[in-house]
Amino acid sequence: MRQSELFTKTRREAPKDEMAKNAMLLIRGGFIHKEMAGVYDLLPLGLRVIKKIEEIIREEMNAIGGQEIEMSALQDKGVWEKTDRWSDDVVDSWFKTKFKNNTEAGLAFTHEEPLTRIMTEYISSYRDLPKYIYQFQTKFRNEVRSKSGILRGREFLMKDLYSFSRDQKEHDEYYEKTKVAYKNVFNRAGIGEKTFITFASGGSFSKYSHEFQTLTDAGEDVIYLDEQKKISINKEVYNDEVIRDLSLEKSDLKEVKAIEVGNIFSLGTRFSDALDLAYKDEKGEKKSVVMGSYGIGLGRLMGTVVEVLSDEKGIVWPESVAPFKYHLIDINSKERSDELYEKLSKNHEVLYDDRDLRAGEKFADADLVGIPYQVIVSERGEKDGTVELKDRKTGETKIISENNLGV
Amino acid sequence: MRQSELFTKTRREAPKDEMAKNAMLLIRGGFIHKEMAGVYDLLPLGLRVIKKIEEIIREEMNAIGGQEIEMSALQDKGVWEKTDRWSDDVVDSWFKTKFKNNTEAGLAFTHEEPLTRIMTEYISSYRDLPKYIYQFQTKFRNEVRSKSGILRGREFLMKDLYSFSRDQKEHDEYYEKTKVAYKNVFNRAGIGEKTFITFASGGSFSKYSHEFQTLTDAGEDVIYLDEQKKISINKEVYNDEVIRDLSLEKSDLKEVKAIEVGNIFSLGTRFSDALDLAYKDEKGEKKSVVMGSYGIGLGRLMGTVVEVLSDEKGIVWPESVAPFKYHLIDINSKERSDELYEKLSKNHEVLYDDRDLRAGEKFADADLVGIPYQVIVSERGEKDGTVELKDRKTGETKIISENNLGV
Repeated sequence: MRQSELFTKTRREAPKDEMAKNAMLLIRGGFIHKEMAGVYDLLPLGLRVIKKIEEIIREEMNAIGGQEIEMSALQDKGVWEKTDRWSDDVVDSWFKTKFKNNTEAGLAFTHEEPLTRIMTEYISSYRDLPKYIYQFQTKFRNEVRSKSGILRGREFLMKDLYSFSRDQKEHDEYYEKTKVAYKNVFNRAGIGEKTFITFASGGSFSKYSHEFQTLTDAGEDVIYLDEQKKISINKEVYNDEVIRDLSLEKSDLKEVKAIEVGNIFSLGTRFSDALDLAYKDEKGEKKSVVMGSYGIGLGRLMGTVVEVLSDEKGIVWPESVAPFKYHLIDINSKERSDELYEKLSKNHEVLYDDRDLRAGEKFADADLVGIPYQVIVSERGEKDGTVELKDRKTGETKIISENNLGV
Repeated sequence: MRQSELFTKTRREAPKDEMAKNAMLLIRGGFIHKEMAGVYDLLPLGLRVIKKIEEIIREEMNAIGGQEIEMSALQDKGVWEKTDRWSDDVVDSWFKTKFKNNTEAGLAFTHEEPLTRIMTEYISSYRDLPKYIYQFQTKFRNEVRSKSGILRGREFLMKDLYSFSRDQKEHDEYYEKTKVAYKNVFNRAGIGEKTFITFASGGSFSKYSHEFQTLTDAGEDVIYLDEQKKISINKEVYNDEVIRDLSLEKSDLKEVKAIEVGNIFSLGTRFSDALDLAYKDEKGEKKSVVMGSYGIGLGRLMGTVVEVLSDEKGIVWPESVAPFKYHLIDINSKERSDELYEKLSKNHEVLYDDRDLRAGEKFADADLVGIPYQVIVSERGEKDGTVELKDRKTGETKIISENNLGV
């Protein structure tokens, strides 16, 4: 894409009410726009990053048997009353609204209830199980405070997967598979090395749930990490008993701040019992379906990548989630740049800075936007057909033949 | 995909409260699920159709210079007050909700206001124009009645494009381009022959807007169609003056029912003036940006394809938007079917009915689900390696070598 045509521009300053580094950089780079506290729009560059993240997650969810759907945001009070999650006294993050006939409706902050109800129409026998269903869907959460940029949105895109298993054993096996899939996601998104599985509170059907926590001072969570064993404990369940239970030593655990980029949760039969999701087993006996839920916030993941990998010049995207692979920068060599753009963009995603600006401004913009490979085309290489290739992450540059690019 | 693994099943009956043919067939086929009146979930088959439709529209919007974004559903009261569209007395289809601090927020039924405000940050000079921005985004409309299935949802996915031009001439030229792009979309989705451009009310900045109306008795609109000239007039503006204005003859116009599958609208400077979206022209003079908006409801388009193309046996998908190209049906030839599935699915989208059911049930299901090509693998063709290929639309069948499939 030609940068002269892109409607966004980089900005020197983020809005004054924006305090979080992730949102400040993303707004300055033209990736997102702030509507209100906790409510952001995705601009073209930001949408490209989210689509890349979405595709990575989709591949990993499909690889563990996930079937993709998309449920509504508007929620029917009735089904949530059955699980006792309608009342604002029980769930304090509801956004609620009303139909014309004055009936109340909610905006989904999660989807256990409606999906469990859907599954009652399709599950009746052990032959119908197990099933794994996921979606990319906009969640609404009426947060009291929202000061962490896109790490804690009041409206945000989430991948939520739900598992429906015959019994605890079948559930546990799948639960372990999702751990691997989640690790793959965070590895592929470039934050694998800083992301650790974390024991957190489990609820009535399991001792623990598991979070994936990425180390950074921007995190809202406090965890206790054993760096050797690559295991941590969320502060909310951190005590001597849990440390012993996990065979860890207090002296090996370091208190650090982290962002929860994903969580997986055993739900037992809490929702299936409340909504009568049951099946007949081989002997014809009625059994409750055993469920689990597994979430990743896409905006939060994008924000975490920014928090963790950016430097003093701006964002540093890993190639896997970068909006473009190459940032082609023309410095007074328009004709040669145009040709190279045509050639390179046949096989690669290229943002072409063809704007009529000073070189210094272009370089600063490119570093802020954070595309992995900057290709600088200037008069210097005109004679021997070379360009300068700069690695945004390391800052290393080398002179290479333009014919060696993108091969 | 193996049908034995798909979590949905076909149903003999739609829910009792569902009256619309489109939703009845889509629910019975396992494409959608009804949450409440006007609120539907997309199940795996339905999501596949919507993604196909989305990609067709995306290609056509990109072809006319569109840049894709995604804006929030939650809306800031302030910006809508400036255009006088916040009050329920002016716009009666708002869903409204509240933040924790008791501030009101709306759920977007359209996005002129927030996008115009975004553009004020990026448009200041004539060099920044024209720009064309679009999104696929969930809209919320608090309809009083919702009895047309997915043709009129209270929550629905919409493609909305907005144009920002320097003057009326530049706007008009783009407006004509969008007409072509819209025709391409409806042609590619298989309803081009039944879809006609229709003159509708224009508002204060243009005499007419244009709708794309698809003929069917399921339509909620009444239009007056000149079949020769392929032009129609919406009942809302149908009068002698308009007929004369468009050089039509009353006697050539036939009253028919139709579904509005798309609309395009000249907005003039209504929103840019209210929100101060202006630019400096070549002479340094301040000018208002001229805007247009262009919508297509994706669920409505899916529903229209079902209404228009289905037959007494079920849905008939055009290949372009079908959830799969081939429906491979095994009739007691499991081994050969398995092999063919492996081979065929390398290059094509195949739903493989590997279920343990009677042939008659499988055929009825396949006709209901409406995948374009049914490939029936039975004992009959075992010796000479042939299969039966049935065209869902025409019902024609032929015996062909399995090696000729999908080449």
